[in-house]
Parts: sequence; C-alpha cells; structure tokens
Amino acid sequence: MEFSSKLLENAVYEMSQLPGIGKRTALRLVLHMLKQPSEQTLRLTSALQRVRNDIKFCSNCHNISDVVLCEICANPKRDESLVCVVEDIRDVMAIENTGQYKGLYHVLGGKISPMEGIGPQNLTISSLLTKVKEGIIKELIFALSSTMEGDTTNFYIYKQLEGTEVKTSTIARGIAVGDELEYADEVTLGRSIINRIPFENSLKSS
Amino acid sequence: MEFSSKLLENAVYEMSQLPGIGKRTALRLVLHMLKQPSEQTLRLTSALQRVRNDIKFCSNCHNISDVVLCEICANPKRDESLVCVVEDIRDVMAIENTGQYKGLYHVLGGKISPMEGIGPQNLTISSLLTKVKEGIIKELIFALSSTMEGDTTNFYIYKQLEGTEVKTSTIARGIAVGDELEYADEVTLGRSIINRIPFENSLKSS
Repeated sequence: MEFSSKLLENAVYEMSQLPGIGKRTALRLVLHMLKQPSEQTLRLTSALQRVRNDIKFCSNCHNISDVVLCEICANPKRDESLVCVVEDIRDVMAIENTGQYKGLYHVLGGKISPMEGIGPQNLTISSLLTKVKEGIIKELIFALSSTMEGDTTNFYIYKQLEGTEVKTSTIARGIAVGDELEYADEVTLGRSIINRIPFENSLKSS
Repeated sequence: MEFSSKLLENAVYEMSQLPGIGKRTALRLVLHMLKQPSEQTLRLTSALQRVRNDIKFCSNCHNISDVVLCEICANPKRDESLVCVVEDIRDVMAIENTGQYKGLYHVLGGKISPMEGIGPQNLTISSLLTKVKEGIIKELIFALSSTMEGDTTNFYIYKQLEGTEVKTSTIARGIAVGDELEYADEVTLGRSIINRIPFENSLKSS
C-alpha cells in the first residue's frame, strides 16, 4: 500500500501490529477516527495509556486489578481453601458469570508453550506453589483449556505438588448442555461416557 | 461483562467504539497490549494522536496529505484536465495501484446518504463545481461505488454541471478479468453486453 501521508501510514502501521488487525482493517479504523471528533481519539489513546501504565495485578491471585488485593481475594465470603487455576482474566470473567463458584482464583498469565518460548518461569507457578505450601489451600481446580499446552501446564503443576496434601481436580469435560450427541467429537463423547456421573447428581446442578 | 478493573473496562469500552470491534475483540486487543512492552502502546497512541491532530487535506483534491498540496496534485506530469471523482483515500490508493491513470482526483469524503444524514453540503461538491467553472477540467470520471448512494451522488453532481462544457464519464462496469460468466450477477452481465467495446480496443488494454 502506498500512502499519500506519512502520518497516516505510521498510524496504520502501528494499528496493524495488533493481533488480527491487517493493513486494510487498520486503514478503515484510522479513517473512521479521522471522521469522528478528535475528543474520541483522545479518549481512546488516554484510556489505552492509562491501562498500560497504571494497571496492577492482584498480589494474591495475579488477576488484573486496580488495587493491590483484588475484589475477589478481598471478599471474606469466598472460600480461600478452594483455588481455581486459570490462564487469564477472561477465564475468571467467564467462571464468575456462572455464579456457581465461591472459591478464589490463581491466574497463571499463560500456558507452558516451548514453541512460543513460554516456560514455567514466565508464569506465576512458583507463587502458586508458595501459597499451597502455606497450607490454607485444600483443593486446586485446573481449568486450563484442554490443548497440548494446557495439559502440559496442568501436569507440570501436578508434579510440583508431590509431597503436599492438596487435592487436585479438573473441570468436567463433556457434551455441552443443549448439544446434540451426533455432532459431538469422539474424544469429548468418549470422555463424557467414561466420566459419567450418578443421575441424581445431574438433577441437583440445574 | 463484569471487569475487575475500571481502567481495563474503560480501555475496552473506548476500543469497542471502533467499527467492527466488539467487546470481546476489544478485550483481546487490550490484553495483548498489556503483554507487550509499554513502548508499543506509546507508539500506537502517539501515532493515533498525531494523525488525528496534524492531518491535512490537500487544498485542491481534498485527499489526506501531510502538505498543503498533495504529491499527485503537485506533480506537473499529471493531466490536470482529467479529474476522477472518488469517495475517499482508499479509492485513490486503489486507482494509483493500477498505474493506468495519469489525471488528478477529487475526493468527495463520502456519498450523499439521507439515511446517514449526509447531504451535498457535507461533501466537497461545491469545491468541485468551483474547479469546473475555472475551465481547466475537460473531463470528470465518476468512480463512486455503484450503490444507490453512489448513483444519487453521481446524478446530483451531473445535474449541477448543466451549463458547463465539461465531459462526464463513469468507469466501466462489467465482468472482472478472469471471472467466469456463469457466476456473474445478471445486472453486471447485462450491462457488460450493452456496453460492449470494439474487440480491437480490448487488445490494447492488456
């Protein structure tokens, strides 16, 4: 693409550095901004600057937070003996939306992925192990995505926990509520049969 | 969506004001920025601020430019008697990419669209008419998209030109080079038969 303006070219280039935003989309977004009042661009850029510079991570669960201890960790009604291990804030938001979980979280900040150069030292695993050794946590729920990286990370943490008394579990994998069996993949359907639950239990959870 | 951080919520909200960016995409983009060095966010925000505040529009063709008279209008090799009327800078870039056009442009900045509240006074039509009356322009090529808004705008300008001696034309609509006839829509195929050209002409343009 040849631009008639260096300023425009530069803005489009920086915008296209974001994941999933190509040059054409970036140009469309920048041209949109030029048509809007300049206050709107100012609001966007200052919001991005502030979130980048002033963002904090909760000292206990490492979730994104405006304060040192996030709302969830600071809530005395939550069960601190139960900790759900997740990848990032989006997983916390998804689980919170269910309204079913009353324990705390531990945000790893990613998954072990040698391909992307992410090792255990890049995640908050050592902080999790320190918390486990303090003895307050009774159960860890692994809720990482069931990919190779997720399984590797689960297993790495599981091995590190040897010698401690903490119980570990993973969220149930199975056919989504409302889904048809015929469209389910074999792995999920197979697991959902092996890990079947007593019928009475399914009556409670609805 | 419930956020654990007001800063994050605000950044996601401002990001989701951009066209085609929903809340989930905005969250993904902001989380990506948080994982990158803060210099990258600074580069993006300052590029956006600069383009919004310092952008100029060419005094002749109204295209986006860093200087008062854009490169194309300032080029003495271009034919100033031929002017192509387009909607925005993307159309200029597309036509420039062909390397086939040696005239100048006139960027309208949009199309007449009562639905979106865009009337002739919101576009650069009066500036175009002033240029035509100066008598240097011999031919105007309408190259707006062939939608209802594009056709309306073409016709509005055409009517305003009554009494002047300028020639008007529109770019050829037809089957794209390399396309199969069986997949073409009827309107395009119909027009391409009505507006057929002498076979010798098609030999020159390749």
